[in-house]
Amino acid sequence: MTPVRTGEFDRIERYLAPLAAGWPGAFGLRDDAAIIPPTTGCDLVVTTDTMVAGVHFIGDEPAALIARKLLRVNLSDIAGMGATARCYTLNLALPSSIEDAWLADFTAGLAVDQAAFDVALAGGDSVSIPGPMCLTVTAFGEVKQGGALRRGGARPGDRIFVSGTIGDGALGLRALRGELSMLGTADRDWLADRYRLPQPRLAVGAGLVGLATAAMDVSDGLVGDLGHIADVSGVAGVVECDRVPLSKAAGNAVAGTPDLRETVLTGGDDYELLFTVPADAGPAVAALSATVGLPMTEIGLIEAGAGVRVLDGQGQPMTFSATGYTHR
Amino acid sequence: MTPVRTGEFDRIERYLAPLAAGWPGAFGLRDDAAIIPPTTGCDLVVTTDTMVAGVHFIGDEPAALIARKLLRVNLSDIAGMGATARCYTLNLALPSSIEDAWLADFTAGLAVDQAAFDVALAGGDSVSIPGPMCLTVTAFGEVKQGGALRRGGARPGDRIFVSGTIGDGALGLRALRGELSMLGTADRDWLADRYRLPQPRLAVGAGLVGLATAAMDVSDGLVGDLGHIADVSGVAGVVECDRVPLSKAAGNAVAGTPDLRETVLTGGDDYELLFTVPADAGPAVAALSATVGLPMTEIGLIEAGAGVRVLDGQGQPMTFSATGYTHR
Repeated sequence: MTPVRTGEFDRIERYLAPLAAGWPGAFGLRDDAAIIPPTTGCDLVVTTDTMVAGVHFIGDEPAALIARKLLRVNLSDIAGMGATARCYTLNLALPSSIEDAWLADFTAGLAVDQAAFDVALAGGDSVSIPGPMCLTVTAFGEVKQGGALRRGGARPGDRIFVSGTIGDGALGLRALRGELSMLGTADRDWLADRYRLPQPRLAVGAGLVGLATAAMDVSDGLVGDLGHIADVSGVAGVVECDRVPLSKAAGNAVAGTPDLRETVLTGGDDYELLFTVPADAGPAVAALSATVGLPMTEIGLIEAGAGVRVLDGQGQPMTFSATGYTHR
Repeated sequence: MTPVRTGEFDRIERYLAPLAAGWPGAFGLRDDAAIIPPTTGCDLVVTTDTMVAGVHFIGDEPAALIARKLLRVNLSDIAGMGATARCYTLNLALPSSIEDAWLADFTAGLAVDQAAFDVALAGGDSVSIPGPMCLTVTAFGEVKQGGALRRGGARPGDRIFVSGTIGDGALGLRALRGELSMLGTADRDWLADRYRLPQPRLAVGAGLVGLATAAMDVSDGLVGDLGHIADVSGVAGVVECDRVPLSKAAGNAVAGTPDLRETVLTGGDDYELLFTVPADAGPAVAALSATVGLPMTEIGLIEAGAGVRVLDGQGQPMTFSATGYTHR
């Protein structure tokens, strides 16, 4: 990797190499490439996300938080495949204004989440950019051969479930922007944290292997992402709005400003898992919920057809001004 | 992957999904992540490089050339490990000024090199950046379990070899900048092409598995990269300057301007393989050279000690003003 120049070597040695200490195939970040030895009977799962300052984050957040979110959004995709996370690579394109203290904080954040999610740095690249910081993580996981959760397996009659609560991320972004003044500080802070530090649902994903007919993580918003499952599966998704699980803070927000329901349903950054299961799988989902200690809520039904309908309390289809979702 | 927004979907579908058609585990770029099914008895090799407009390329080059170089510098690292290339992921951070025609040309370049090197697109991400284009490729290869070529195995008495010719890339960059007026147009164009379109030496790397004691691709310059092998192996490298193989064009440049010898020895972007073999392996290297149809030249010797010495025609150590190499 890394045609890096003098000076970059020292930074890599000091700040990045320690993150690779737990991955023998990283070779201390001192070789052309890294090795990922396969586990017998497993497929390797790979996903990658890029975050740009001014687009995906403001830029003045604590460096540790930026790092952890970058890693977590990738791990969320690993969870969406039902895989167990193993390692990741990191590409840093940093403006020259970035100082060592920032990098120290950034890598400290990665160290915390490496321990939390049992992953290690396997390799990467570090370059300069005459512009905004541009950060890429590529994450690797493993899943039983042929067992990866896919988007394309939903069938008419399947039940639609989500893990956790929906809408917190999108509301959290609004809270960070100084909106949601109807809420108390505690609610606003809680929502902001959900936006800043998503929880990849790796245990949920792993538990859904062999159970879910389709699954993905909710990053573009519930309605849009269910649209992806519907499209790839060739089916329609029908959601009952009142069944979509809200956190206490999100519930307070929607109670005060009913228009925020659209934000909840179509906003992004939930990083919960959205999945479909056969009609008789309710008890298995309940058992998984108990095992991982996270609510899983049935929110609707897969039908023959195409697209997504969200029904209000009177069973009428709701319309949204923007969904982040285009029929394709 | 890809929390992308409306509009990006169309671009991915039109320009990127066709590049993934040959990789079943890419799922048409329509799932959370990609699958890389392992080959029994093989380790997976992963490498990643980021290129930024204004840093690693000018930005006004033909898009197809930018794409092919980005892919090839990664494949060169795969070659440096002795691995066979399999697939890659692509992260595009593009300014809003980038039009579909540019992306069409960029992906056409990738298609050409996918065919040339038998690799396919497995996944990626596409985002916008309010600044210079920032492009990342992560490339995947496979090598016999435990057989990867490493930097750390050079032993005193080993012979140092390089594939092909050295210095063309660095001279090519100078030619592109309008320098090297002592050369004819044909020489300047040939060198510029070597800079713009490196040749990853995958067949050489694969042939060195089980033969070379250490290997890497020459991206930072011969002297600096030999320094990496020396450091990681805990040995010294001694190179005889007059044995370093030059192309006809590079030979003409150095003959006209002897100072350019430093550029040849310390400039980067060769993407040839630098490797060490036991003293008795000369015939095996010659046989590999004949098989792949590329010269391989013995340029020096590994000794006990540390660092790199380059000896001139009189056996005196040469000094360089800049090497891209820091002792570590």
